[in-house]
Amino acid sequence: MKNFNYNVSTRILFGRGKINEIGKEVKKYGDKVLIVYGKGSVKRNGLFDVIINNLREYGIYVYELDNIDPNPRIDSVYKGAEICRKEGVKLILAVGGGSVIDCSKAIAAQANYCGDIWQDLYVEQKLQDLKSVLPVASVLTLAATGSEMNGNSVISNMHTNQKLAIGHDLLRPVFSILDPEYTFTVNQYHTAAGIVDILSHLFEQYFTPDHDGYLQNRMMEAMMKTVIEYGPIAYQELNNYEARANLMWTSSLALNGMVTYGKVSTDWATHGMEHELSAFYDITHGVGLGILTPYWMKYVLSKDTVHRFVEYARNVWNLSGNDEIELANLAIEKTREFFTSIGIPSTLEEVGIDGSKLEEMAEQATMFGALGCMKKLYKEDVLAIYKMAL
Amino acid sequence: MKNFNYNVSTRILFGRGKINEIGKEVKKYGDKVLIVYGKGSVKRNGLFDVIINNLREYGIYVYELDNIDPNPRIDSVYKGAEICRKEGVKLILAVGGGSVIDCSKAIAAQANYCGDIWQDLYVEQKLQDLKSVLPVASVLTLAATGSEMNGNSVISNMHTNQKLAIGHDLLRPVFSILDPEYTFTVNQYHTAAGIVDILSHLFEQYFTPDHDGYLQNRMMEAMMKTVIEYGPIAYQELNNYEARANLMWTSSLALNGMVTYGKVSTDWATHGMEHELSAFYDITHGVGLGILTPYWMKYVLSKDTVHRFVEYARNVWNLSGNDEIELANLAIEKTREFFTSIGIPSTLEEVGIDGSKLEEMAEQATMFGALGCMKKLYKEDVLAIYKMAL
Repeated sequence: MKNFNYNVSTRILFGRGKINEIGKEVKKYGDKVLIVYGKGSVKRNGLFDVIINNLREYGIYVYELDNIDPNPRIDSVYKGAEICRKEGVKLILAVGGGSVIDCSKAIAAQANYCGDIWQDLYVEQKLQDLKSVLPVASVLTLAATGSEMNGNSVISNMHTNQKLAIGHDLLRPVFSILDPEYTFTVNQYHTAAGIVDILSHLFEQYFTPDHDGYLQNRMMEAMMKTVIEYGPIAYQELNNYEARANLMWTSSLALNGMVTYGKVSTDWATHGMEHELSAFYDITHGVGLGILTPYWMKYVLSKDTVHRFVEYARNVWNLSGNDEIELANLAIEKTREFFTSIGIPSTLEEVGIDGSKLEEMAEQATMFGALGCMKKLYKEDVLAIYKMAL
Repeated sequence: MKNFNYNVSTRILFGRGKINEIGKEVKKYGDKVLIVYGKGSVKRNGLFDVIINNLREYGIYVYELDNIDPNPRIDSVYKGAEICRKEGVKLILAVGGGSVIDCSKAIAAQANYCGDIWQDLYVEQKLQDLKSVLPVASVLTLAATGSEMNGNSVISNMHTNQKLAIGHDLLRPVFSILDPEYTFTVNQYHTAAGIVDILSHLFEQYFTPDHDGYLQNRMMEAMMKTVIEYGPIAYQELNNYEARANLMWTSSLALNGMVTYGKVSTDWATHGMEHELSAFYDITHGVGLGILTPYWMKYVLSKDTVHRFVEYARNVWNLSGNDEIELANLAIEKTREFFTSIGIPSTLEEVGIDGSKLEEMAEQATMFGALGCMKKLYKEDVLAIYKMAL
């Protein structure tokens, strides 16, 4: 096991009715809050009013920043930080999914920062320069990214055509409210995309060529089983509380750091490859991951990596057999069948992607170097996987 | 899934050499520290000097409280609190295992408390009266209790012959240093007892009659597998870093609250029954648990509880078969075999306990009501289990 520093400080208020504690919790940080949200669905479904009314009971002044994009923009960040400085905001409350939370974290960083966080933190990654941030909290409405319990933030800059990420413990939300009922309105398509995203986060951390991280790998298998058990139930019954609850809590635990603290390595090649699909064709992130993952698995399967696939086959899919490569291939098939069962396409063609830009995308995906560790993927490898997926 | 508030705020510094960060970490809280430790093994093995030298580099004044008993006494708590008040101590540093950490937490509570924590908190359980505590940190030297990452504290009062527990989020250590190398000197006997203790904590939270808590139960199975994989390795090779590391990290995660947040119930009957064995015959806690657990399993196995045993059989022991009761019994046998393989006795007789006090112990064990939830155990039930174990 590798050395690590564990620090998961976010408090979670989980379950039905927890939203009624929002005023009491926010008040601990002060009486001026900036609420950040997306395109208004939280206003239409009534959640916004519930929050506002509860905050008012505690005498909290509310400022608003709406219209956050699915790929949150640095321009929204500057706008939010400006409000925080001008009004003396004490806490930023993200109400929404990962995009809104990521944006709120960036606002929290920019509000207290002398200089431009885009250039210093996102571009130049001078994370040691981040000394203090405004506290961020969240009310989660979509189970997928895990942003509600980690310090990650992905921001896009449309002026430079860049989408960049940072991770810093200071950016972990101080608390997050997770009420599974607020995900009942997520439709089948986005529920499926979220399910794939959660599984993919686990795959990226699980599939590594080392023989290390026994406990961590077993915990990830536990989470994969949970997604495989409850994903199809939530997909079929959008209002199934137990299914939504298991998905929601798994999504938070899958990417708060816990399952990789102590592991030697992680992969993240599939996310790197999918990034280009979304960038070039604007397809849904989870759908892109679902298409690519089984092809990536086939491509990186080798004598050196088969042991992890065998663990995956036996412990997640309860498969048995002695031929290791056969077992691995069976598990990969199971993975594809699972994605298909929740309506995820299995080829790029089905989402309108043809062969015309594959080369350019493969170039972009590897512009900062090879991807992954199960097998180092250079441009030709990425291109080969894209072609398998056509 | 049940509503819950998750709050695991302890930072963990895990791995070889992490002790060298002790001065830097302590300094964040002030420059006066009370070091609490046991019977002096940390002085004999050199750990104490390493800590003192590092603290000195940071100009930190050190006060000492030694001689903490395996069952820490309230008298030590009063003594420690007195030092804290008199000297203006800013942080209490526990160096040792669960007993030393539990005692340090109680000192941290008493130091800031107007009144007697024994009567108010441990006896009367008025936990809402605990408003502030001194920060506690720990350097762990034994993998077993999980006290390094939770808010639990068990204290004994020899004047009243009581051993009582409290749990409060304020009592979670602010940080704990976990270096598996500091557990290399734990002998085979106590290594085995620690292994049983970790497994037992998982069993107490896992074996519940409800059909709820899917994710939580899968995570506990992941941890059980880890203990079953690495327990015998650590037992055979006391200096095996990977085995010690997996046990150490599992012990912390197994009882920091994570695996039961959201679960409907927990059991803890076996701990309740073992408590009396230790109280009457002063046997090692983990050994008592190891003797009783398989008998308890047999006793509570029924049509209503078999489903959890079947999950245990299939997911932890990889057993297969269709007869559920048979599967359950096989898994119980496997559990006994595992304990035997690390030198744990299987009868009370082997540790010098005869039938003479069983009735009295059963009476004591149930004096506050029935134990457990897999099956409610009244006095006659506890007596029956003790007799099975003779």
